[in-house]
Parts: sequence; structure tokens; C-alpha cells
Amino acid sequence: MEIAILGGTGAVGRGLALRWGRDAEHDVVVGSRSAARAEDAAAEYRDVLSTGPDGDALGDATIEGRANEAAVRDADVVIAAVPPEYLRETVASVASSLPADAVLVSPAVALAFDESGAHYDRPDEGSLTAVAAEAAPPTVPVVGAFHTLAAPRLADLDRSLDVDALVVGDDPDARDVVADLIDDVDGLRALDAGPLANADAVEGLTPLQITLGRYNDGLSDLGVRFE
Amino acid sequence: MEIAILGGTGAVGRGLALRWGRDAEHDVVVGSRSAARAEDAAAEYRDVLSTGPDGDALGDATIEGRANEAAVRDADVVIAAVPPEYLRETVASVASSLPADAVLVSPAVALAFDESGAHYDRPDEGSLTAVAAEAAPPTVPVVGAFHTLAAPRLADLDRSLDVDALVVGDDPDARDVVADLIDDVDGLRALDAGPLANADAVEGLTPLQITLGRYNDGLSDLGVRFE
Repeated sequence: MEIAILGGTGAVGRGLALRWGRDAEHDVVVGSRSAARAEDAAAEYRDVLSTGPDGDALGDATIEGRANEAAVRDADVVIAAVPPEYLRETVASVASSLPADAVLVSPAVALAFDESGAHYDRPDEGSLTAVAAEAAPPTVPVVGAFHTLAAPRLADLDRSLDVDALVVGDDPDARDVVADLIDDVDGLRALDAGPLANADAVEGLTPLQITLGRYNDGLSDLGVRFE
Repeated sequence: MEIAILGGTGAVGRGLALRWGRDAEHDVVVGSRSAARAEDAAAEYRDVLSTGPDGDALGDATIEGRANEAAVRDADVVIAAVPPEYLRETVASVASSLPADAVLVSPAVALAFDESGAHYDRPDEGSLTAVAAEAAPPTVPVVGAFHTLAAPRLADLDRSLDVDALVVGDDPDARDVVADLIDDVDGLRALDAGPLANADAVEGLTPLQITLGRYNDGLSDLGVRFE
């Protein structure tokens, strides 16, 4: 499967690329507005994966870098791992290049902070997954996923995950595609959160995780498990 | 410590009474609008705890039943384990009987259901914990807790918990009191979710847990762990 990660030079993109690079055999394409930055990041990820603790390579995946539009052109799954304020324009900028059978994934969460902690800054559209769905072509199913994964932990291959990743969106087949990619990663378990109308509850977990990290000594980069 | 559980004849109240009855040594007072129903429930809980698998009693706690107003009179902690639509009037009905140094706890969540799943039905006050705080005397600190515990699992002493319970409210000392009571229960870990402004995020977990149980085969009565 070919996975394009827009914003693949950022923390979430780096984490996803490295985890799939180590734990699966997909073709990962790092996307960035700048092809040069994308290529540099891909080279760095290949380097991280080239030598494990025992001297062998950590994985068999291919990792390349391309400008966003070129990155999505042959992708089966496109992850829009960009900051929330760039989500709509990033999806719109690749809309005409997206394959008709691709699945678009939004991991973005809009946060607001005050003295009490982090809060969910709900978009007027109901969720950022809904924002992505509005910006995507109507034929491309949009799934929200990966919101509850702490980026620094995801990107550090020495740290275990052992947490859940929730998928939400109106197309059940697209949710299944993303769930399979999640289950490919060691320590991640995909959970189905149902249709897009539930995306606000899923995205709203992230600020609670941040708040719990703030109020409980010794807990940080928290993930979540439902059991 | 004396713990009064208003609505102590219901599923959440039953679960809390049995868990504290087995795992701690507090004085538990089951409250109900009807003293007779409260006494019957307390007798039934004592009976459940009177004989464990090895023939010995399961715990040393005392469990009594009283009408709500009498139940709170000497309580250190009062749990308002009533349906959300009765929360305000139940708290108001005992307000004049609450000891000045008691802590009031709200485990209530307001849910709405549609074809997508369960959703958080946010009260105008921001959260049900805030509703309880409005109805309580200003001197009595209010803490939200126990929202994420599935009542059937809590009330079945043969089932393990191994989940977190989040405490939220404006008084840090009151949060600590409730956290200690949570940590008394085998398999529960208290997490501090900070001030009352975070109560909507905590209460909003419950509908997500219900939705995840609906969309994932083999998962039900889900709890949550942050790790």
C-alpha cells in the first residue's frame, strides 16, 4: 500500500513514517510544500531505520520524499498531518491530484488553552475531520484517526505504545482500511468510533490527555486505552 | 470515613457500595428517597459481602440504609449517584443537611442518542458537575468523578476493573479526598483532571465509551486508561 503523509516533516508525520517504516512494508511518501524538505526528511527517516540495535536494518519499507501534489498522485491513503490551521488549504491544494479511490485521513485537533488546561476548540463544522471532508472531493472518503497519539512518543522508536487509535468517518470501508494500517504498528490497536458525527468526541480526547499530563506528576505523552 | 451514596439503590450506587464494602473499611450509608428501600438495599449489599468464595466475609465495612437527608447528616463524602434529570433537585433536597466540611461528588452524565451513537448532551451550565455545584451550598466543594466506570462491571465483584477514574472540580483538597477513595478500590487508579472547567471533557468520555462498545465486536462495559 502507498501511504502519503502530507506534513510528513512534522512530529506526527515523522512518527507515522518511522513506525510504518519499521513495522510494516508499505511504500511511504513524505509530503511537504517543499520537495527538497520532503526529500531531506525521507532521507533522515531512512537513515534512522537503516541500522537497528543489532546492526541490521529496522524495516523493509521504502520511504521517499515529494512535494505534496506529487506525493498524493499514486497514494492509496493520504494522511493530512498538518497543523489544524493549514488543514483546509492543504487538502484543497491536493484535491485535484487525489486518486478517486484514495482515503484521506485527518489527525488534526484544534486546541485552546486557558488556566484550567487544554480544551477542544470545536470548529463550526463540528470537527476538523468534517473540515477535511468539506475540502476533499466528494468521491474521496475522509477518516479521522491518530488524534490520541502523542507525537514525541510516536516518533521515538525506543518507546512502546500499547495504546488505542480511534478511527471515525462516514465510510465503513475507509475506516477499515485505516484500521488495518493502525494494526500494522506494533503496540497500536484500532478501534472503530463510527460515523463522522462522532469525530468531535474523538478529537476532544486530545485536550483531556494534555490536561491529565499537566495535573498528574510523572505522566506525560499519554495515550488512551479502552478496556 | 463516612460515605453517603444518594441513589444508592441504583446500579452505580450499588457498584460503589460493594467495591468500598469489599476493598476498604469505610462506613457506607446507602441513601434513597425511601428509607425502607435504602435499608433493603443495604441489607442486600451486606448479604453479598457476607460470604466470599472461601466462606469468609468479603470485607469489614459497615453498610447502612437511610433516607437521603438522614444519610448525609454525618457524611464526609456524599455521592449523588442519581439519574442526571434528578441531580439538581436531589442535591438541593439535602443542601441544608450537608455538613459544612463534606465533599459532594457528581458521577452523572447527560447522554443523547442518535443513529451515529451516544453523544454528550452538554448542560447550559457547562457540565453536570457544574449543575451540582450550583445546587450545593457555596461552602461545600463539588467534585465530578466516576463517570467513566461502567455500572454493570462496577457492581459485579467478579469482574476486574484495571481502569482509571478521573476527578475534576475547583477545590484541589476535595479532589484529593475523592482520589484517595478511588485508590482504595482494587483496580481503580485516580487521575486528577483539574478544575471544574474541565468537567465537560471528563463527562464527555462516557458517550464515547458507549459508542466504542457499539462499533467494536466483543467490547462492552468499557473503561478507560491513560498510559
